[in-house]
Amino acid sequence: MENKITSIFNIKYPIIQGGMVWCSGWKLASAVSNQGGLGLLGAGSMHPEVLREHITKMKQATDKPWGVNVPLLYPEIDTIIDLIIEEGVKIVFTSAGNPAKYTAKLKENGITVAHVIANSRFAKKCEDNGVDILVAEGFEAGGHNSREETTTMVLIPQIKKVTKLPIIAAGGIGTGRGMAAAMALGADGVQVGSRFAASKESSAHPDFLKKVIEAGEGGTTLTLKKLGPVRLIHNKFSAQVADAQSKGATIEELQELLGKGRAKKGMFLGELDEGELEIGQISSMIEDIKPVKVIMEEMLAEYRNTLQDLSGKAFQF
Amino acid sequence: MENKITSIFNIKYPIIQGGMVWCSGWKLASAVSNQGGLGLLGAGSMHPEVLREHITKMKQATDKPWGVNVPLLYPEIDTIIDLIIEEGVKIVFTSAGNPAKYTAKLKENGITVAHVIANSRFAKKCEDNGVDILVAEGFEAGGHNSREETTTMVLIPQIKKVTKLPIIAAGGIGTGRGMAAAMALGADGVQVGSRFAASKESSAHPDFLKKVIEAGEGGTTLTLKKLGPVRLIHNKFSAQVADAQSKGATIEELQELLGKGRAKKGMFLGELDEGELEIGQISSMIEDIKPVKVIMEEMLAEYRNTLQDLSGKAFQF
Repeated sequence: MENKITSIFNIKYPIIQGGMVWCSGWKLASAVSNQGGLGLLGAGSMHPEVLREHITKMKQATDKPWGVNVPLLYPEIDTIIDLIIEEGVKIVFTSAGNPAKYTAKLKENGITVAHVIANSRFAKKCEDNGVDILVAEGFEAGGHNSREETTTMVLIPQIKKVTKLPIIAAGGIGTGRGMAAAMALGADGVQVGSRFAASKESSAHPDFLKKVIEAGEGGTTLTLKKLGPVRLIHNKFSAQVADAQSKGATIEELQELLGKGRAKKGMFLGELDEGELEIGQISSMIEDIKPVKVIMEEMLAEYRNTLQDLSGKAFQF
Repeated sequence: MENKITSIFNIKYPIIQGGMVWCSGWKLASAVSNQGGLGLLGAGSMHPEVLREHITKMKQATDKPWGVNVPLLYPEIDTIIDLIIEEGVKIVFTSAGNPAKYTAKLKENGITVAHVIANSRFAKKCEDNGVDILVAEGFEAGGHNSREETTTMVLIPQIKKVTKLPIIAAGGIGTGRGMAAAMALGADGVQVGSRFAASKESSAHPDFLKKVIEAGEGGTTLTLKKLGPVRLIHNKFSAQVADAQSKGATIEELQELLGKGRAKKGMFLGELDEGELEIGQISSMIEDIKPVKVIMEEMLAEYRNTLQDLSGKAFQF
C-alpha cells in the first residue's frame, strides 16, 4: 500500500509544512523534516542572500528531504530560481503565479515541483507544464488566497475529478481529524500552515503568535479582495481596510493604505496594530505554542484514531 | 455500534435533506424519507395554509419519519409554530434565529428539535435551551449564511470540541466523499442541500436547475453581507449588488436594490436575471438532475467505498 506523497518525497508521513512568510525559516523546516514530514523554507519573505543562509543552515540541520516555497510573483524571482538550482535544492513548491514559466527549468535541473492551486483550471495548467504534485488550497487557508473562495471541502474532490496528479490538501488542516477528512476527500497528503506557524520552532514574533492563540472563531477575515485576497487576523489595520472597502475604496486607495512591508511588521516585528497578521481559520483551534515533535505526534495519533474509528463504520448502514 | 442521528430520528441513513426555500416541498421531502434519509419541508417559502397543504400531502406520501425546517425570522412564525404543533409534526429544524424562543414550546409538545448554527457560541446557547441536535453549517453552504465565514472543515471539529450534542454537518456535502470527510471531522450525520435541490423531485424551476448544473467552480458568491450574507449563483442581480457594494452602498441602498421576493423569482419562477439563485459551492460538482433514489444510492456507495479505502490506512505510516 503506497502513499504517493511519501514515495515521491521519500518522507515518512504525508505531512507538508506550508512555506510561510516570516514563520518558516530553517529552524521550523528542519524540525518538520527531522520528524518525518516535509519542511519548506518560505522564500517569500527572504532576500536572496537570506535564503542562501537558510539553505546553508538547513543542510547542516537535517539530512532528511526538504524544500523551498517560492511565490512566483516575488520581485527577485529569477535570482531566487537560479540560487535554488545552484544550491542543489531538490524540492520546490511554487505558488502565486503561473506554473508555465519556471517549471521546465526546475525540472531540467532535477527538481521535483509542486504548485499551489485553487481551481481545476490551474490543475490542468500544471499538468500541461509538467508539475509533479498539486497543492490544492481552500478558502480557509491563511495569507494569500483565491478570489473564487472555494473551500477545502469542495475543492479537493473537484481537483481529484480532473487530474491523476498527487494532491496535497491545504487550508483548514491543523489536526488529525482534518488530515483524515482531507484523505477522505481524495487527497494523498496534507499541507499544514497555521499549526506549524504556532510552533516553538517558528520564526514569527511571539506577540503575533499570542494573537494567533487568542484568535477564536471568526477571528480572521479574507480581505483586500480588490487587490489580491489575503486572510488576516482582525486588528486595527484590517478594520481600516474594512472601513475603506465599505465606503467603496478604489484599488489605488487600497494600495496606498496597504503600503509596504505590513506582513513583516505584523508577523516578524510584532506590530500588532499596523501589521498584516496572516493566519488561517484553523487558528481558532490553536491554543498553545508546541514543539514540532508534539504537533506531529498528536496529529498522527488523532489521524490514526479517526481512521480506526471510521473503519468499522463502512457497513454500519 | 450506534449512530446517534439514525437512532434519534429512527431513520436508516444519517442523511438529512436540507429544508430549502422553493425546492423542498412534499415531493422532495417524502422521496428522501422513503429512501431512508430524513426529508424536511422548507417552511421558509410557505405561507401557513401552503405549509398545511404540504404537511397533509406528506402524511399521505410517506409513513417514514420526516420534519419541517422553520427559519425563526419568518414573519408569520407564531402561526407556523402553532400549526406545526397542531398537525402533530414530530421533528423540527429551526434556523436563522435564536433557539431560546421556541425550543421549549416545541419540546413540550413532544417535538425533537435540531437548530442550525455556525459557531460554538450558538452551540452553547442551543444546549442551554434544550435543543436536541445541532446542524453546523459552513461557509460553502447555499442561501443564508453566517458573517463569520467559518468553513465546514474548520467548523465541525470546533463544535465537536464544545458540545456532547449530536452534530449534523452541513455545507459542501453532496457526495459520499464529503459525507466521509464530515464523519472524520466529528459529525454524526450530514445535511445535504444543493444535491437534493437538483433532483427530479425538487420543486425548483427547471431553468434555475439548469443554472445550478452550469455553475462551475467559483460560480457562487457570498454576497449582501451588510444585510445578511447569502450565497447565490452569479447573475445580473448579483452583479448589480457587487457593483453597488464596490461603490460603498449603504444598508438602505442594498435593501432597496434587493426589494422583495427575489428568491421566489429566481428559484421558483425561473427569472434568472432578476432573481436570487441560492445554491451552495458544491453545485460545481453537480452535473445532472437525478432522482432522489439514485442520489442516495450513489452517495452511500461512495461513502462506503471511501471508508473501506481509508480503513486499511490507519497504520500505513
